[in-house]
Amino acid sequence: MSRIVYVNGEYLPEEKAKISVFDRGFLFSDGVYEVISVLNGKLIDTRGHMLRLNRSLGELDMAAPCSAVEIESIVKKLVAENSVEQGLVYLQITRGAADRDFFYPENPSPTLVMFTQSKNLLDDPNAEQGIDVITVPDLRWQRRDIKSVGLLYPCMAKMEAKMAGAKDAWMLDADGYVTEGTSNNAWIITQEGTIVTRQLSNDILHGITRKAVMALAGENDFSVEQRPFTPAEAYEAAEAFVTSATTFVMPVVKIDAAAIGNGLPGEMTGKLREIYIDMALRTE
Amino acid sequence: MSRIVYVNGEYLPEEKAKISVFDRGFLFSDGVYEVISVLNGKLIDTRGHMLRLNRSLGELDMAAPCSAVEIESIVKKLVAENSVEQGLVYLQITRGAADRDFFYPENPSPTLVMFTQSKNLLDDPNAEQGIDVITVPDLRWQRRDIKSVGLLYPCMAKMEAKMAGAKDAWMLDADGYVTEGTSNNAWIITQEGTIVTRQLSNDILHGITRKAVMALAGENDFSVEQRPFTPAEAYEAAEAFVTSATTFVMPVVKIDAAAIGNGLPGEMTGKLREIYIDMALRTE
Repeated sequence: MSRIVYVNGEYLPEEKAKISVFDRGFLFSDGVYEVISVLNGKLIDTRGHMLRLNRSLGELDMAAPCSAVEIESIVKKLVAENSVEQGLVYLQITRGAADRDFFYPENPSPTLVMFTQSKNLLDDPNAEQGIDVITVPDLRWQRRDIKSVGLLYPCMAKMEAKMAGAKDAWMLDADGYVTEGTSNNAWIITQEGTIVTRQLSNDILHGITRKAVMALAGENDFSVEQRPFTPAEAYEAAEAFVTSATTFVMPVVKIDAAAIGNGLPGEMTGKLREIYIDMALRTE
Repeated sequence: MSRIVYVNGEYLPEEKAKISVFDRGFLFSDGVYEVISVLNGKLIDTRGHMLRLNRSLGELDMAAPCSAVEIESIVKKLVAENSVEQGLVYLQITRGAADRDFFYPENPSPTLVMFTQSKNLLDDPNAEQGIDVITVPDLRWQRRDIKSVGLLYPCMAKMEAKMAGAKDAWMLDADGYVTEGTSNNAWIITQEGTIVTRQLSNDILHGITRKAVMALAGENDFSVEQRPFTPAEAYEAAEAFVTSATTFVMPVVKIDAAAIGNGLPGEMTGKLREIYIDMALRTE
């Protein structure tokens, strides 16, 4: 079955969903994106994603193709058209098509592309078993707070993980501290029960799920520290997990050669996953 | 007049030159490119560009869509179809279209896109007057030896230069040394007459024109040092220039607030430009 894909005002069968080869998203990775998860046909935290999208556009002096309200209505229509019960909506805005020149075009006509993916997010087997990660140097650009489509290095790191028999990679800055996962924020829970994740800066993506989990942890009286941590500290942690829009709170049970805790998904991690999903399911 | 553009086996009017929104070049900047200049309808140093293209593909475990010989014949056909006398051919290979996933697709079908731009390269007014550059931090990823389409930061830096009234930016590594220009290699000539440019590594693009100019400098008994240099050293240089496929040897007359030499294009720079263009025009 072919999905319906949105491209610049049109709803098209995916085979016909095309953009110009002169699109700056294609030639210069001059574009930004968001991924919004869908549970029971409902969008999770659309507002948070729209705010971040707006921030990414602002940082790049990139015009939005239409208002956030219009984008939201397209998102909803696409979820309905494709009967997505569980899964995600991917949306990308680029500076549009123009003859190739590093300088931004004078009168850009931004591109808006949107598509859906149906997948079982709630009963993800990875959440039952937990995932293994390896650590790799973080070779990405230094504006990781901008959610740009310049994702080649995360793809390379993910492939390196796959070759090593792991599911994902945590990336390390020049000082040897963990920045984040390839498409998620990285967290550990110390033996003392303190939840640790790196503070916001240009070094990491400002995760929407990260923010929600931070708030939920606070509400549940968990102690949270925002600071960098090393793989060595992570190896000795009681628990570890990652957060992202589509994996929610995903337990990490092995980092490099080190089993975390008893090598099974941690208890606090499970609790955080549960309360996050509960909250998400209560979305209007 | 519409150009003819090559897209995956077809020669199309540029309005119809499109790729799937699922192309990994668009979603992940999972693609590489080359720019080959054209003088008198002839391609300059195609072999060097094909070798580098092949290296970029290899570093990314990316399959070529066809042989280098076939690519060359498409390049030539496109130059003829578009009657390009002076200008360039741009070619891009991506890992092709696949449903969005950071992991590389199992059986990728690579995308090959090619288009031309006609422009006057020999009588470029910038070569007469020289260009001004500013210095900015180099925030790009750390595999700049791979000629990937992840060019958002160079675009941003070029816009920053434009806002500052300059033509381009030289980027500085964390230690304060110049890496290269946004789309060219950076060179200075010391007061003692030594030509200096940064040595090859993952920090810079391995310029095809850089290599040719290096060889020509050697043949003409110029002394050349391959090492990093700082803006402070550049401000005090006798001459400065950049090299790229389409600008050849382009004089730099001002770096940040500092006029270089007497503020006019340097004599040795002019000589290098002349001998490079002479050699290029002798291309079979």
